[in-house]
Amino acid sequence: MTVTAIVGATAIDGTGASPVRDSVVLVDGGRILSVSSGPGAGIPDDAERIDATGAYLIPGLMDANVHLVAAITPDLALEYVDRYDETALEAAQVALAAGFTTVFDTWGPAAPLTAVRDRIARGEAVGARMFVAGNIIGLDGPASPDFYATSELFAPETAVRINEQWERGVGADLLWLTHEEIGDRVRAYAAESGVDFLKYAASGHAEMQFITFSAEAQRAIVEAGHDAGMTVQAHTTTQESLRMEIEAGADILQHGNITGLGPMADATLDLIVDRRLPVAALLFTDAYTAWNEANGSSGMKIVLNEHLERNNRRLIERGANLLLTTDAFAFGPRNIAHPSGKAMREAPDVPIFLGESHVYWFQAAIQRGMTPMDALVAATSRIAHAYGHPDLGSVEAGKVADLVLLDADPLADPAHYRRIRAVMKEGRVIDRDALPSPRVLTA
Amino acid sequence: MTVTAIVGATAIDGTGASPVRDSVVLVDGGRILSVSSGPGAGIPDDAERIDATGAYLIPGLMDANVHLVAAITPDLALEYVDRYDETALEAAQVALAAGFTTVFDTWGPAAPLTAVRDRIARGEAVGARMFVAGNIIGLDGPASPDFYATSELFAPETAVRINEQWERGVGADLLWLTHEEIGDRVRAYAAESGVDFLKYAASGHAEMQFITFSAEAQRAIVEAGHDAGMTVQAHTTTQESLRMEIEAGADILQHGNITGLGPMADATLDLIVDRRLPVAALLFTDAYTAWNEANGSSGMKIVLNEHLERNNRRLIERGANLLLTTDAFAFGPRNIAHPSGKAMREAPDVPIFLGESHVYWFQAAIQRGMTPMDALVAATSRIAHAYGHPDLGSVEAGKVADLVLLDADPLADPAHYRRIRAVMKEGRVIDRDALPSPRVLTA
Amino acid sequence: MTVTAIVGATAIDGTGASPVRDSVVLVDGGRILSVSSGPGAGIPDDAERIDATGAYLIPGLMDANVHLVAAITPDLALEYVDRYDETALEAAQVALAAGFTTVFDTWGPAAPLTAVRDRIARGEAVGARMFVAGNIIGLDGPASPDFYATSELFAPETAVRINEQWERGVGADLLWLTHEEIGDRVRAYAAESGVDFLKYAASGHAEMQFITFSAEAQRAIVEAGHDAGMTVQAHTTTQESLRMEIEAGADILQHGNITGLGPMADATLDLIVDRRLPVAALLFTDAYTAWNEANGSSGMKIVLNEHLERNNRRLIERGANLLLTTDAFAFGPRNIAHPSGKAMREAPDVPIFLGESHVYWFQAAIQRGMTPMDALVAATSRIAHAYGHPDLGSVEAGKVADLVLLDADPLADPAHYRRIRAVMKEGRVIDRDALPSPRVLTA
Amino acid sequence: MTVTAIVGATAIDGTGASPVRDSVVLVDGGRILSVSSGPGAGIPDDAERIDATGAYLIPGLMDANVHLVAAITPDLALEYVDRYDETALEAAQVALAAGFTTVFDTWGPAAPLTAVRDRIARGEAVGARMFVAGNIIGLDGPASPDFYATSELFAPETAVRINEQWERGVGADLLWLTHEEIGDRVRAYAAESGVDFLKYAASGHAEMQFITFSAEAQRAIVEAGHDAGMTVQAHTTTQESLRMEIEAGADILQHGNITGLGPMADATLDLIVDRRLPVAALLFTDAYTAWNEANGSSGMKIVLNEHLERNNRRLIERGANLLLTTDAFAFGPRNIAHPSGKAMREAPDVPIFLGESHVYWFQAAIQRGMTPMDALVAATSRIAHAYGHPDLGSVEAGKVADLVLLDADPLADPAHYRRIRAVMKEGRVIDRDALPSPRVLTA
Repeated sequence: MTVTAIVGATAIDGTGASPVRDSVVLVDGGRILSVSSGPGAGIPDDAERIDATGAYLIPGLMDANVHLVAAITPDLALEYVDRYDETALEAAQVALAAGFTTVFDTWGPAAPLTAVRDRIARGEAVGARMFVAGNIIGLDGPASPDFYATSELFAPETAVRINEQWERGVGADLLWLTHEEIGDRVRAYAAESGVDFLKYAASGHAEMQFITFSAEAQRAIVEAGHDAGMTVQAHTTTQESLRMEIEAGADILQHGNITGLGPMADATLDLIVDRRLPVAALLFTDAYTAWNEANGSSGMKIVLNEHLERNNRRLIERGANLLLTTDAFAFGPRNIAHPSGKAMREAPDVPIFLGESHVYWFQAAIQRGMTPMDALVAATSRIAHAYGHPDLGSVEAGKVADLVLLDADPLADPAHYRRIRAVMKEGRVIDRDALPSPRVLTA
Repeated sequence: MTVTAIVGATAIDGTGASPVRDSVVLVDGGRILSVSSGPGAGIPDDAERIDATGAYLIPGLMDANVHLVAAITPDLALEYVDRYDETALEAAQVALAAGFTTVFDTWGPAAPLTAVRDRIARGEAVGARMFVAGNIIGLDGPASPDFYATSELFAPETAVRINEQWERGVGADLLWLTHEEIGDRVRAYAAESGVDFLKYAASGHAEMQFITFSAEAQRAIVEAGHDAGMTVQAHTTTQESLRMEIEAGADILQHGNITGLGPMADATLDLIVDRRLPVAALLFTDAYTAWNEANGSSGMKIVLNEHLERNNRRLIERGANLLLTTDAFAFGPRNIAHPSGKAMREAPDVPIFLGESHVYWFQAAIQRGMTPMDALVAATSRIAHAYGHPDLGSVEAGKVADLVLLDADPLADPAHYRRIRAVMKEGRVIDRDALPSPRVLTA
Repeated sequence: MTVTAIVGATAIDGTGASPVRDSVVLVDGGRILSVSSGPGAGIPDDAERIDATGAYLIPGLMDANVHLVAAITPDLALEYVDRYDETALEAAQVALAAGFTTVFDTWGPAAPLTAVRDRIARGEAVGARMFVAGNIIGLDGPASPDFYATSELFAPETAVRINEQWERGVGADLLWLTHEEIGDRVRAYAAESGVDFLKYAASGHAEMQFITFSAEAQRAIVEAGHDAGMTVQAHTTTQESLRMEIEAGADILQHGNITGLGPMADATLDLIVDRRLPVAALLFTDAYTAWNEANGSSGMKIVLNEHLERNNRRLIERGANLLLTTDAFAFGPRNIAHPSGKAMREAPDVPIFLGESHVYWFQAAIQRGMTPMDALVAATSRIAHAYGHPDLGSVEAGKVADLVLLDADPLADPAHYRRIRAVMKEGRVIDRDALPSPRVLTA
Repeated sequence: MTVTAIVGATAIDGTGASPVRDSVVLVDGGRILSVSSGPGAGIPDDAERIDATGAYLIPGLMDANVHLVAAITPDLALEYVDRYDETALEAAQVALAAGFTTVFDTWGPAAPLTAVRDRIARGEAVGARMFVAGNIIGLDGPASPDFYATSELFAPETAVRINEQWERGVGADLLWLTHEEIGDRVRAYAAESGVDFLKYAASGHAEMQFITFSAEAQRAIVEAGHDAGMTVQAHTTTQESLRMEIEAGADILQHGNITGLGPMADATLDLIVDRRLPVAALLFTDAYTAWNEANGSSGMKIVLNEHLERNNRRLIERGANLLLTTDAFAFGPRNIAHPSGKAMREAPDVPIFLGESHVYWFQAAIQRGMTPMDALVAATSRIAHAYGHPDLGSVEAGKVADLVLLDADPLADPAHYRRIRAVMKEGRVIDRDALPSPRVLTA
């Protein structure tokens, strides 16, 4: 296999190191051979040269929290009940075309998602590299009160056909069990579902649920994941659930910046900062925040309010270990037209559109005090380390050659993340114009 | 083509004439050649003989009001949105297997229904002969407040994909127009939809609607239908809507025995009797009636109450021209398990199960004073005449050879309508054991 | 009793006649003795003189459609269930303070309303002169699906305690009866309820109801009212219901400018113009119209849309006999804070605030082409004639001395209707600062 | 003050001791002076003698869990918003008339309840002795999603007027705080509300809530109560919430027999038995249990199922320290007619009717294996001790003279608890025929 040489770009390696102008990056066999610059950078004679003069080279982006199956409305959930893999692949392609070479799917149906993951991994399909959590342990599937209740309109069997693809033995019925029984269920799930990491609900999903699992149960879940060699994260929305999650030993705090209608306790903030706990942080631009205050749903006002704003500023000021996380879906026209899609239709800087909303995340991070360089680190190497994949996420020798070439400096303006010249995954240039193909839900 | 001779049955011809014992019915080319009895009945030597000794021969049954597309719940409506023809064919086969050689579909999606109708008519598929009304003029499709509101759960486009197959330009938006405009719309529908007859809403479908169309508008609809050579019927649920429908010239009063929370006016009853207006009468057994009084929905209590009981007894006593009508669907397990299916799960003698509930209709008719012979006429020749198909519905020379052989006398006990020995449609014996095939919604 | 002389105002008499500068209006015994001007106007020596120099004298305003009992939310309806008279009196005082000496209450509980009416008429309480319709014939009371369904939260008895004060035998159960029976019920209501005029529902109130009564039933209602010496009006929202109401002989077309999702038919418009039928017209300012288009409820978009705009312009252009009608209530903070009060909280120029919204009506009328003078006539003498009270509504000799003095010319700017110097009812000056007293629902 | 001598009854003292035939119980100054029997029992000459021959003398009954304010439907909650004290007093009288001399109100508005409590204590009103918890710490008031959501029908202010009487700073907003902050709030509530004991939500009230407070927060609440000299109990519905409550040190496990859709863990059962923890046990008769299985709401099926049945039998078999608890209200016709009252209208042995349902509790207890004697202890002395009132609950010298005379042996048949000859509270005979007076909600 020939070596590829990307020549002339300003390389920003994703570790926070200073950009390297006029760089030469050699890629071989899907890995980065070397990163150098200046006249002495040796380029093998037979190397395939990519002229990147004027471009900016960054690691392939990563998102710590996406959902590739957009069955978030009852009609789509039902219509695609036997074809979630199609929409998952479409979404993985939307992500890749936008510069995401790796995404972490933190809620979805395990079987179709892992099938798509494996097809992509084996090179049988093009798409972002996927890591999959399957269900959020302790919640029921989408056609349930944890998400949208369909009990008036769907026959029970219809809801079951949808929900069972998520629940796989770790749904809301866990909440009636003892912590020992919960641990056993999670071990079985880790062993049999084929997922890559675990996510559990430290607090509930709907507005009225507070603490989902006792401290003992949370420890049992974390231990089950660790014994299976998986990272474990929790969904959290209150001060106490965040504290409990940390005490239980979770590896990543999924939207750990959210504490609902109370502020983050000082002691918790100290723990997060001192232990360098990865916080996958949902951030919202000033424009969206203002819109939400005036027009948002009651549920979203519980999430996004003055407490969240203060948490974000304090976390950033203290140098907490934040990760880019968007909760994004590959929404198409039908999702957006759905009655539940009001915010998607009306709000500015919608934070959950896969392939678009990361730009708003970068803007929001900078508005709240993060440096542009740190924001890039939060979207690359930091996610890789938090999830236990140190060979991903940076432009360094030995790493997987997931790379993005931009036409303008992303540190100067987050909007420049949209100005993609090329995306390279494992050393191969992606034909972005062909993605997604076929279109299933996106326009 | 060979003549077929059905020999030895007691023939009950569907006109009300006395049964003929030891009959000989000759069938040729799909028509009845002759009906005779006794030793002198000549049977051609080369005739194929069917020994019907001990059996009862009746005309193929007819139902003045069925719905072959069982998309009556949101989940089924959506799941089969592109395959309503499959469920329609299944239902036509359920009907045929139960002895119905002809059914009148009074509400459904015109395109798939007429396609199935035509396939059956051309001999490409087996099933009951179908006549189709398509939409109920003035109502929206199933995924609308006229049936079941889905506005919270379905994207508008999803509801439209379902509803547009029904509405075809004659939905509820008609109700905002002048009577002249309504007439124009109905003419276009009659010309373009391919349906066989028209049905309009004289009163609304949901509980709160009363009169749907003005007298002028009703006349315009009836005239549009007649000009297109079609019979016209109306859905009615109140005293005034029934009176208006009659004054507008409707050919069949669809469930004209129902007057809701008031009794039928004497003057209206007189008109019905004197003009021999066909009343497609929904009848309920004593057992179902008692169950409904104790456990029925508020909507069903508006329909079935002391007023209906009195109307039924008076209509029968006065010899009104009643037709068997069931409003039946080929419901399967999923319909029955649906939240809306409480009555189907719990009530005795459920009146809307295609292929079963006609037996309850016969029982209910007899409980209310009808003779068994008149009930059979109401299910055969009288429907044929009301709908303008005089060559159907009786065992008489020249008529289409739609015949049912029963093992026991249906006039002795309506349950004997279930004891089918053979069904013959257009002179051919149906392989009932193969029906329905394939099974789509039925168990 | 002494004669009062109002001296020096510009008198605009409410008939459309040119304003009279430097007028002298003599009032005696609650009636206007004379209206004159110039040096020759004789003022009795012992007359009490009111110096109105610089002021504008107009007839006391009239509103063809208000609701003095603001029990339009379930909590207020229940909380005041035994004290509707208190809120009715408060509202009559709000109206009087704003210059309305006469209001027509077109929907409310007959007993408390007529009691307040009589107390005011006897001089036992201060307030606008009231004429009362009681229930809208054919609709149920407020705690019903015709207004707001409470079936999930109120015990049936609770709803009945509220609703029975409206229904008085002419509720929605009428719709199950024959037209003869309907006529009998309405006759009884006219005889026993104590109301002054009748209003019936030609179309329903909720979105899904179209024609409420057959043509025969509408004629029976109108006849019953006329035989009792009452004017009869109908609530109408569709083209056909408007046409039917006219054909039935209604005296006033209540919001007859509304035809919902269709335009007013030319023939209907011609009838209205040619017969000079009084149309109580709901008019909305451009600002409110724009807000509704963007933010209004689905129900309000059925009412206010391009068809209404066109109807209004055509009616005004053709010189139709329009009356000021606001559908206004004396809403207070609790109504406005109620979940149903979104439009009241957010919209500009809210059209239903008693004492305020008539200014918006004048503005809207002028925006749609009406002259300021004609708008004043629509709010005074025209209403008086339409309702059959020719001794009200104008500043002419012999008329009841209901008068308003304004500090600025109302024909120059409708906002000047707010600049009230004095209100005189039956010749007596009202102490407006004391109104309303006590405050019940208003802030 | 004269001594009263109750002579001749069979005394069952409420401690589990054998019944004493032909007893003499002397009462003086509201206390029991002595309990003796046989010929040697000295009766002071001037004693007032009550001939109780043939009667059964038991301690006044106690209920560990009632609700004296029956504002459990929106319409009653609103209608009586300023008069909850009236309904509380009525209920305390219903209880007293049924033989309950002491009741523990575990959920209600603190101010009116404590006012009634004090009036009764001071002898200004007649009624059962009351101890009051006020709000369930961590839940919002009745007009909230924790009980019945009114957000569609009530203006926010209306709901607040109701709810604030319950919440008093310890509503559901606690759940957003840290455990330290929660402790502070509860201390303030204990100091300022005037209540007698504390109750908190260990699990939530609605179906979807699981653990309400973290272990640390529960300990903080218990400590705050204990520091204020109060007993503390928790509402619990799951295995884990029950275990956490015990570990937090709660004094009484309110319906601690309920573990929802899972069984009680063996370890938890052992703890309850070994530590003699008081379990206020909701018990349901076989008849009600069968009805609920067939017809109950989904919520009630979560509570009452095979797990509860097994828990109950095991607790009784192991001799756990159970208390009579009914969750009863003084429901009247309006509550029962309310849409939410289906079970009250249809079920046998309704367990929540104050003054009636304790008989069903006794029956249910015996059906599940408890001895009649133990059931009486559970309804008297055991409750007194659990709640820290050792001078109540038994017929022993020195105790408060709360006594009930029955005409038939309650140990022979629980129905005999209805055969009350007399109720004596603090030594005074109650005029039961006068109770309740006035009637507010009861028939």
